[in-house]
Amino acid sequence: MTYGPLPETDLTRHRRLREQGSLDRADLDAILDAGFICHLGVIVEGRPMVVPTVYGRDERQLYVHGSVASRSLAAGAPVCVTVTHVDGLVLARSVFEHGVNYRSAMIHGIPRKVTDPDEKTDGLRRLTEHATPGQWDYARRPSRKELAATTLLALSLEEASVKIRTGAPDDGDGPDAALGLWAGTLPLTSAWGAPETDPLLPPDLVPPAHIARREGTRHG
Amino acid sequence: MTYGPLPETDLTRHRRLREQGSLDRADLDAILDAGFICHLGVIVEGRPMVVPTVYGRDERQLYVHGSVASRSLAAGAPVCVTVTHVDGLVLARSVFEHGVNYRSAMIHGIPRKVTDPDEKTDGLRRLTEHATPGQWDYARRPSRKELAATTLLALSLEEASVKIRTGAPDDGDGPDAALGLWAGTLPLTSAWGAPETDPLLPPDLVPPAHIARREGTRHG
Repeated sequence: MTYGPLPETDLTRHRRLREQGSLDRADLDAILDAGFICHLGVIVEGRPMVVPTVYGRDERQLYVHGSVASRSLAAGAPVCVTVTHVDGLVLARSVFEHGVNYRSAMIHGIPRKVTDPDEKTDGLRRLTEHATPGQWDYARRPSRKELAATTLLALSLEEASVKIRTGAPDDGDGPDAALGLWAGTLPLTSAWGAPETDPLLPPDLVPPAHIARREGTRHG
Repeated sequence: MTYGPLPETDLTRHRRLREQGSLDRADLDAILDAGFICHLGVIVEGRPMVVPTVYGRDERQLYVHGSVASRSLAAGAPVCVTVTHVDGLVLARSVFEHGVNYRSAMIHGIPRKVTDPDEKTDGLRRLTEHATPGQWDYARRPSRKELAATTLLALSLEEASVKIRTGAPDDGDGPDAALGLWAGTLPLTSAWGAPETDPLLPPDLVPPAHIARREGTRHG
């Protein structure tokens, strides 16, 4: 990534829990690369709407499958894309100090509808490969008609902010220690299961290696 | 739940992929009960902002930890709360038919700041118990000062929509079947790990049963 640190702007400045904020672009990259689902926030007739959708990226922009937001995109409206990985519960001695271990990235900007067929194909390749490495070279690629029927948005990664919380609760040596209660974290992890073959397929058709080898590996 | 089916309003009507829409309130309840993190969408100075935060609920409303959105809540602004569980990748023969198995709920409304101390305490209890059943009776409850320092929002569950996709790809018997490619799904599951005791605690302090028993259980 040739970009510098994440910029502090009115939108990205950490107002709360500043100690959880990161200005390191490598943290942003890592959070984006660990997932494939984002929550896309748009304004529709004056009201916010938050829709889950898939994404991919290159060095400087995020590609988002945009059909879910297509009815609000006419006027170059601003969006917010948030990617969150939940790593566990932070269980302190007091309810007030409870929290969540997580990694979250928030990207602000005005997306561009990708119309050039070559860029659209490349964006869809990135999106496909982001979720399932190896799949673009395996599956049938989009036809011209399918390409035209797909809405792809590109969003600059310039204006982004990152928050990360890790580790034990923060009240380890506070007065609540005298309560004698257990405190710590309860980790949460995601993992890929065994591929399930489409029941309409011949049962002896086995998943290709790039899919089979993910079984049991961690996600997120 | 005494509510009827989910209402079809301008905000909840399914415009895309209508076959994935559900008007069954039991589906909404199940999606909300399966998770504890939502994505809260608010409008801040004309731009959308999507922040992850924790929630709980009663029969008719969602309680959301609202400090993350506190700077945009002055004017009774509308919000959108989305809860998403990702169940796996849908890997079709063609890139165009690729998708995601998921369960997602979207709730629209104008949240109310909870100010009554009794309701706030009850809301925090629901929020705590939602993420960690048994924890409210175990940990130290909020003091009056801590209660005052917590922003809790209540959002009616009346205007909500649900989308669910399950199962194999949809192109099983389409012309792409002739390609001879594997197609199916790659499931993704989340599970709780082993509790990690705060290193500042005596090492012989063991996690209470309500936390220890979650190890290895599925989440989401």
